[in-house]
Amino acid sequence: MGRRQPRGMETRDRILAAALAEFAGRGYAAVSIEEIAEAAGVTKGAVYYWFADKDDLGRDLQHELYERLATQALAALDPTGDAVSNMRRAFEVYLDALGSLGEARFFLRDAWTIPALDAGGRRDHEDAVAMVRGVLAAAVERGEIVALDPDALARILLGAWAEGTLHVLRTGERAPVFAVVEHLVESLRHRDAGPVTVPASPGAARPRSEED
Amino acid sequence: MGRRQPRGMETRDRILAAALAEFAGRGYAAVSIEEIAEAAGVTKGAVYYWFADKDDLGRDLQHELYERLATQALAALDPTGDAVSNMRRAFEVYLDALGSLGEARFFLRDAWTIPALDAGGRRDHEDAVAMVRGVLAAAVERGEIVALDPDALARILLGAWAEGTLHVLRTGERAPVFAVVEHLVESLRHRDAGPVTVPASPGAARPRSEED
Repeated sequence: MGRRQPRGMETRDRILAAALAEFAGRGYAAVSIEEIAEAAGVTKGAVYYWFADKDDLGRDLQHELYERLATQALAALDPTGDAVSNMRRAFEVYLDALGSLGEARFFLRDAWTIPALDAGGRRDHEDAVAMVRGVLAAAVERGEIVALDPDALARILLGAWAEGTLHVLRTGERAPVFAVVEHLVESLRHRDAGPVTVPASPGAARPRSEED
Repeated sequence: MGRRQPRGMETRDRILAAALAEFAGRGYAAVSIEEIAEAAGVTKGAVYYWFADKDDLGRDLQHELYERLATQALAALDPTGDAVSNMRRAFEVYLDALGSLGEARFFLRDAWTIPALDAGGRRDHEDAVAMVRGVLAAAVERGEIVALDPDALARILLGAWAEGTLHVLRTGERAPVFAVVEHLVESLRHRDAGPVTVPASPGAARPRSEED
């Protein structure tokens, strides 16, 4: 027991960090336990002390990425703020949480297709969908956003964010992606809702750079 | 040579169809060449006559799905129509082309993470992005849609469509997903643009079930 904390946890974290770097660099399928051990500077036995196999390790890694995302999202969201601003902030969190292209690829693509990872990942993903859906459903209820199905909308927005994230990481440019996300999220705002002013004339374009 | 056409091509098509059904049902990783041969009612040797290995087969399958998508998209798009209607139609094509949840999963998820498939798939995907981007860039140029980066927008829309497609296939319900796609695509329409009529009063909701 003493062996596990705190030194053991350090080893475990080191293995997870090394594994993520390897998966990010070369893709999940191409990496072996031996290579993870070597990258972490530990023996193969140490890896097998903490993880039953590569899938077990991948599953833990994926789960920790989701936890990081959920924690940061909860910290960033403003429960008293409007849903549109919260959606915009949620995308920023999503983007910030996925540090590199490789990491995002592991999380957004690889992890979905490994049968052993899929069930756990699906559960975590459903939790993320549920969080976004909850924000949207409450906003529809209040008449703050247009009456679209919150479940379909949550999934489609998460799909949009995933591709947006990959594009930012690929190009290194945030501005074009943020402008698109901003526009799509703003379009959800119900035009009847309170504080928003809508141009009265059909000819007047909505200012796209408005602050609220 | 005589052996390859037309009987050979039939065998090849039968192998591809069986492989797609197997991949769709159980995921790419779980399926062996033996099982594909059995499902196709051919010998293992027949599979190896046409394909070097499973990845080679997966690559061809993925490429054919992309080709199908591109052909149907080109047929469905109206070069003289407006970009917003074309984007809506493009989503319908996307959805119709991916017949089942398993097929969509293979195409939208599995195929991305197999290193051997990734390069070809990436090229095909870039072609799809380029097609959508071209439609969007021309529409931005004409002032028909809002001035967002066509590359970022194309990728984000394709991400939204991918998740929308999976959601339709998962739930069996098109209407909620179509309403979201319709709303997001409509939001791109430049309010200054010519023939579009916008409700004059801020209180009037845009009809979401309109036909055009």
